[in-house]
Amino acid sequence: MDNATYQEIARPGQSVEALSTPRPIIDEDRLAANIARAQAYMDAHGLRFRPHIKTHKIPALAAEQCKAGARGINCQKITEAEVFAAAGFQDILITFNILGTEKLERLAALNDRIDDLKVVADSAVTIDGLSATFASRKPLKVLVECDTGAGRCGVQSPQEAVALARRIAEAPGLVFEGLLTYPKPGAYQAVQTFLEEALSRLEAAGMSCPIVSNGGTPSLFEAHLVTAATEHRAGTYIFNDRSMVRAGHCTEDDCAMHVLATVVSRPTPTRAVIDAGSKALTSDLLGFQDYGTVVGYPGAAITALSEEHGVIDLSAAQRGPDIGEKIRIIPNHTCVVSNLFDTMVFHRDGKVTRVEPVAARGLVW
Amino acid sequence: MDNATYQEIARPGQSVEALSTPRPIIDEDRLAANIARAQAYMDAHGLRFRPHIKTHKIPALAAEQCKAGARGINCQKITEAEVFAAAGFQDILITFNILGTEKLERLAALNDRIDDLKVVADSAVTIDGLSATFASRKPLKVLVECDTGAGRCGVQSPQEAVALARRIAEAPGLVFEGLLTYPKPGAYQAVQTFLEEALSRLEAAGMSCPIVSNGGTPSLFEAHLVTAATEHRAGTYIFNDRSMVRAGHCTEDDCAMHVLATVVSRPTPTRAVIDAGSKALTSDLLGFQDYGTVVGYPGAAITALSEEHGVIDLSAAQRGPDIGEKIRIIPNHTCVVSNLFDTMVFHRDGKVTRVEPVAARGLVW
Repeated sequence: MDNATYQEIARPGQSVEALSTPRPIIDEDRLAANIARAQAYMDAHGLRFRPHIKTHKIPALAAEQCKAGARGINCQKITEAEVFAAAGFQDILITFNILGTEKLERLAALNDRIDDLKVVADSAVTIDGLSATFASRKPLKVLVECDTGAGRCGVQSPQEAVALARRIAEAPGLVFEGLLTYPKPGAYQAVQTFLEEALSRLEAAGMSCPIVSNGGTPSLFEAHLVTAATEHRAGTYIFNDRSMVRAGHCTEDDCAMHVLATVVSRPTPTRAVIDAGSKALTSDLLGFQDYGTVVGYPGAAITALSEEHGVIDLSAAQRGPDIGEKIRIIPNHTCVVSNLFDTMVFHRDGKVTRVEPVAARGLVW
Repeated sequence: MDNATYQEIARPGQSVEALSTPRPIIDEDRLAANIARAQAYMDAHGLRFRPHIKTHKIPALAAEQCKAGARGINCQKITEAEVFAAAGFQDILITFNILGTEKLERLAALNDRIDDLKVVADSAVTIDGLSATFASRKPLKVLVECDTGAGRCGVQSPQEAVALARRIAEAPGLVFEGLLTYPKPGAYQAVQTFLEEALSRLEAAGMSCPIVSNGGTPSLFEAHLVTAATEHRAGTYIFNDRSMVRAGHCTEDDCAMHVLATVVSRPTPTRAVIDAGSKALTSDLLGFQDYGTVVGYPGAAITALSEEHGVIDLSAAQRGPDIGEKIRIIPNHTCVVSNLFDTMVFHRDGKVTRVEPVAARGLVW
């Protein structure tokens, strides 16, 4: 996208209130404070910090995270990693089981292009597929993904972790690089117990384990309690959102992303309709009963979304917004909102500072 | 996007099974049958049919809908309409209250470019804003949006509808063009009653009402029961989805969109994890407890989505898929899936036929 098109979206210095809606906007000062706060915590506890770029998909923001002290980045798919590799990032961890001929070929090509690419595996099938591709190439670093209670991917026991570590170590073209978990928030004791036992078994087997990677924003400020970990990964902390406020990770004033929306209808005294629906806020509830916090209107609840409309119930609100008024919403989940927009507008004190392409959005995998 | 890039996504003739995942794929025969079936019904009942392009956002598909007999198209926002106007569509209804200086200017420019642009309004504020912009321009056609029970936008009574119709008719630069409703599915009697009373009051006031526009795919085959309507709008019918199967509109065999996904992990005997998460399927539940139908695996339930992972519970399934296997999912809601992808791959009997850009995706306004 060229500068002319950017100018059409937002001119530096203009008021964000004049932007077309719906549109997520990022507060530069909150963004910088979120980056600094998490990094200071990691530094204080001697943990390496590896931001997950899925939240923003913007190389310029990853550069700000690394400038603050982050060491390497976390991507969720090869195409994201390709965008960040092209932007100069050399230490990339893809936290996904890579399977299938085409993806493996792209992964190998990416491994050739950057210094330090790493992936995860949680099965012999994944490891054997990786080995078949990398046996005759530059070796690939592989971490064993461990399910410490979140119930997604990962081996179910430390014994299985060690068995897969051994399989990786013995596989042509692969290097066993460590253990990784994406934990259930708050369950640091289960994470610590699992990882400690796996490390002890690896040591007994004479295997070194360079990286032990823990993750998640909800548990970010508990990361130091998992002493078995060498690094922590987190994505959402850079913008924060309503779910992170609920988790106690931050306050509403730490939420750098607001979705700007216009009230387009007031059909009844207790109903307002905005132009932000599921194609702006997404339907992610994350356990909430409604679709975001309406800033400045306590009691207002976004109770229903269709694709381009959000319905706000004002029954419990002291007052409601007028037709034509622009309001701000703190989304339930910021990462999925970023994924809907091709560009992101930033501001400081309500004045536009820059427009960044969401460069890694919309890439199939 | 140029042809070289298209070739990278899919080559005509290749098996869809070889595509990278996650990836929605469209069955050409089901697509054509869905278009033909809805149009034949509308033709049989003498209703004009106005497809809503929000489901696909692809001009080539709207052209197929119009070739089959549709008269004009329905868009939900100005930027969608701009894309379709550029593709040659001349009769476009934007079913949204347009507010704010920038949008009104774009709307006026669009009105200058095509023959027959129409919008809706449900308040004096919207009408007055339109009139202020169009008073000195080519006049704009405006329909009054009526809330016949769906609880979104729209005037609450036939009396209000007539009052707004009069305001439009008297407003410089505006033409009163008719009534519109997006009904609650199945509530055709309420729709008919509302519209009949409004029409009777308009007639008594000596006002003509060229268009009475009803809508929705769930109630598509009940459209003839609303005899007050002159046209019907529908979007989802072109692809269909799990919610339309539940509504009785179609069968699973009429669902033209499948989301192709790869099983990337089988952490336990009752759990499979796929590479389609909320950034491929969306979190739209639409009243379901899970996130889509897993084709060919009865009892398998997609119980949790994170952004790039879907967790399938196999407890109630006779069998589960293997790691590396590609499976197909009928999404709960097809329109929001289209909105996540920059391109759409089509196939016939599993062989790729074409790749279309989702041209109107990601446009803020």
